[in-house]
Amino acid sequence: MKLTFLGTGNSAQMPVYNCDCVACARARSDVRYVRLPCSALLQGTAGQWLIDSGLMDLTSRFAPGALQGIFQTHYHADHAQGLLHLRWGVNLRIAVYGPADEAGFADLYKHPGILDFSEPFFAFEERQFDGFSVTALPLQHSRPTCGYLIRPDQGDSLAYLTDTQGLPEQVERFLRAERPAHCVLDCSYPPTPEPGRNHNDLNQALAIHAAIGAGTTWLTHAGHELDRYLMAHSEALPSNVRQAFDGDQIQL
Amino acid sequence: MKLTFLGTGNSAQMPVYNCDCVACARARSDVRYVRLPCSALLQGTAGQWLIDSGLMDLTSRFAPGALQGIFQTHYHADHAQGLLHLRWGVNLRIAVYGPADEAGFADLYKHPGILDFSEPFFAFEERQFDGFSVTALPLQHSRPTCGYLIRPDQGDSLAYLTDTQGLPEQVERFLRAERPAHCVLDCSYPPTPEPGRNHNDLNQALAIHAAIGAGTTWLTHAGHELDRYLMAHSEALPSNVRQAFDGDQIQL
Repeated sequence: MKLTFLGTGNSAQMPVYNCDCVACARARSDVRYVRLPCSALLQGTAGQWLIDSGLMDLTSRFAPGALQGIFQTHYHADHAQGLLHLRWGVNLRIAVYGPADEAGFADLYKHPGILDFSEPFFAFEERQFDGFSVTALPLQHSRPTCGYLIRPDQGDSLAYLTDTQGLPEQVERFLRAERPAHCVLDCSYPPTPEPGRNHNDLNQALAIHAAIGAGTTWLTHAGHELDRYLMAHSEALPSNVRQAFDGDQIQL
Repeated sequence: MKLTFLGTGNSAQMPVYNCDCVACARARSDVRYVRLPCSALLQGTAGQWLIDSGLMDLTSRFAPGALQGIFQTHYHADHAQGLLHLRWGVNLRIAVYGPADEAGFADLYKHPGILDFSEPFFAFEERQFDGFSVTALPLQHSRPTCGYLIRPDQGDSLAYLTDTQGLPEQVERFLRAERPAHCVLDCSYPPTPEPGRNHNDLNQALAIHAAIGAGTTWLTHAGHELDRYLMAHSEALPSNVRQAFDGDQIQL
């Protein structure tokens, strides 16, 4: 299987509108540093699945029938806004597997169109799909949020952990036992004296990396402050921790 | 002044995802028939104003500072979804003038970013902008909705009336007295035996056209059923009623 980062930015994306900091200037002059809303594509021999739907051009990126389903980490705008248009397709059903969140996003539950939200994950539930299993891992965020442990029938496992600040102890223990080959991890901010409540800063992300012991940790959901920091502190990342950029791929 | 239709579609846009009807096939093979979310740009010597913000690429269409403000007809997704990203710009303030709607759209009020929702219109309020005045006209829709009468200091007047089903009597009387040169009007459906509650069908739109007596009425917010109908019934529109398409312009 293969995971492709479709977006590695936060809600502001990169470049930030009207910002001329060095990170935003870099993204404006070199498309490799553009960051779209945090999302990924999981591809196997049996098809492809989307992780989060904040990209605003889903109907042009994916021909009808090209998606087997969507794993939704949570229902904040930058992770779900692409569903607002996708839902109005016809003669299709697209399953959206996410956390049990009573509100969902905007009026998606009220007017789901072709989207099927009827089978949310419960915490630590494992489901078998064609060629891989997915286990839902509750995260620490301002809305109900699921990370996902993806275990291909053949190949390396990957934990996808956004959005979160820290990890629930039970999840950390679960992942330490699993030791996934790859961990995709929310790291939105540079080291901060007072960590926020919704996203990891770099210190927290590195602590989670150390605690889980994943083979490689890929930092995603970057804000421009983090990109600025890492432009100036390239030594800040251990050799098996990488900043993900849009288009990066992980072979499983 | 000049009004440009940036989008003339309904929430499904055109072509509809996975639809192969003749109207959707036409839009897929000829970009002139593509319909983006219903919205328009009003340009004068003193700058430009957006009417509705459902386009998903506002940050790439409009350089920072290029918009003097946004006239929001209402807060349904297809009219407001572009604000979800635009708001996260920096060092800017963009005024969003819309109806008083306690809920707004998604979490825009909670996290407005650079958007300023602090000055909603009240019904029949007239405000002066640089080179034109705007009068808010309450419409009949499933959310608080304002149409807008735009009166350039020099030039023809234009009434922009989406989304609505019928018109409140007071608004119809007001517009009949005004006799705007141009009326941009919600016409989502072909003639239907049982009109819906939120949008005009063609019969209702033509009745409004006749009641107001505008010089030219431009039908917008089209669904694919209406496009199919008008492809087969080109005689259905009087000579001073036109279907608007994306990119069409009205000189005021």
